[in-house]
Amino acid sequence: MRYRELTIEGRNAVLEAFRSGRPVDKLFVLDGCKDGPVMTIIREAKKQGSIISFVPKERLDQMSETGKHQSVIAQAAAYEYAQVEDILEAAREKGEAPFLFLLDGIEDPHNLGAIIRTANLAGAHGVIIPKHRAAGLTAVVARTSAGALNYTPVAKVTNLASVIEELKKQGIWFVCADMGGELMYRLNLTGPVGLVVGNEGKGVSRLIREKCDMTAAIPMKGNIDSLNASVAAGVLAYEIVRQRLCLP
Amino acid sequence: MRYRELTIEGRNAVLEAFRSGRPVDKLFVLDGCKDGPVMTIIREAKKQGSIISFVPKERLDQMSETGKHQSVIAQAAAYEYAQVEDILEAAREKGEAPFLFLLDGIEDPHNLGAIIRTANLAGAHGVIIPKHRAAGLTAVVARTSAGALNYTPVAKVTNLASVIEELKKQGIWFVCADMGGELMYRLNLTGPVGLVVGNEGKGVSRLIREKCDMTAAIPMKGNIDSLNASVAAGVLAYEIVRQRLCLP
Repeated sequence: MRYRELTIEGRNAVLEAFRSGRPVDKLFVLDGCKDGPVMTIIREAKKQGSIISFVPKERLDQMSETGKHQSVIAQAAAYEYAQVEDILEAAREKGEAPFLFLLDGIEDPHNLGAIIRTANLAGAHGVIIPKHRAAGLTAVVARTSAGALNYTPVAKVTNLASVIEELKKQGIWFVCADMGGELMYRLNLTGPVGLVVGNEGKGVSRLIREKCDMTAAIPMKGNIDSLNASVAAGVLAYEIVRQRLCLP
Repeated sequence: MRYRELTIEGRNAVLEAFRSGRPVDKLFVLDGCKDGPVMTIIREAKKQGSIISFVPKERLDQMSETGKHQSVIAQAAAYEYAQVEDILEAAREKGEAPFLFLLDGIEDPHNLGAIIRTANLAGAHGVIIPKHRAAGLTAVVARTSAGALNYTPVAKVTNLASVIEELKKQGIWFVCADMGGELMYRLNLTGPVGLVVGNEGKGVSRLIREKCDMTAAIPMKGNIDSLNASVAAGVLAYEIVRQRLCLP
């Protein structure tokens, strides 16, 4: 499991957890307890979509680690990020050429979850996301990843461009999707590869695009501009899968 | 444009539009008007995420078609569904073998929007959705389709199975994605084809799967069960695109 449950106890701590935006999966409240502070916590929990359970005192006492739950206990998810090195190690262990996803600013947690799900099923060894201006690992991401987050390591880095530079020295080629590129079927994507996925609205940033070795075009036969980010990532990832299968 | 703006005027009509779940894109309210019924309407509009504008009386009078706006005017989207025949006609007009998407119970409007977007860019001639137990065309679908809904016709049918039967008589082959199938790269998907996409949780229903001519397997190298529905639709749609490109 790449994430563990974190128990938060006491009125201030629980309210603070909600207010800080930490994803709280479940809230346990003493049955019948309806004073002001508890109602405030319940309101925050409803706003976030946490599951609320009203339980007897014995149950709370049993769950409590501190013995000072003050009638409320929250369970939050604490996600563990991997290191980029862990991802490369996973490829080495499997004896496979590294296959990474690098997300250049995916903002929608549903897209992030769907992309981690795709990375898992396409056989990628891990996903690298930037620390700033991007969705991080939350309960929504965990849910939309359909369990993939438990298997596929996600590393969070401060500077995506310098990570690409570093990985290029280790022999990994980088490909991004962009309309101006070469038709993806004509590129050789069988070696160690990093698939770069751009932001939902702005696509891949210029800085990152310039660092890529290849620009792949997905054929576009319609009237609009671009595929949904997680669909585009899936289509390009599966072209990599197809090329690596060595079909007759 | 496949949808047109519908103007709804007067307090009862506007409130009724919200309560019926009709997607209201914009609400115009007389500036400074804060009585009870209007506040109720504003609350409903906020709940739905409609854009609310406070405007002077002259503007409302100008927008009004009935002259009886009672300080509130709503703009809702009225989507026009196509007929299955329109979709086949679109293929004939382009001189292309028909390429349809059939959605067997997609429930999430974000997925529906993303799939219509993919259908447009993959060059499909239209999308067929069932009337019951599935998402219909709403403002969320229009937004997540990124404009594709203006170009790609969507037909809503009562009985998907009998539509498949009918289209098979016209020479269209049906393919669905399922783990038990033949690797998609080994199938011949170059002819007139209907791509069947299953429900997010349950996949393609048995009845519909049995009507399909081919079952395509997307290679799954990971630990979890399935791709996100709109990603799976995109991956299979682009295998059809690749095969139809006749690359050297």
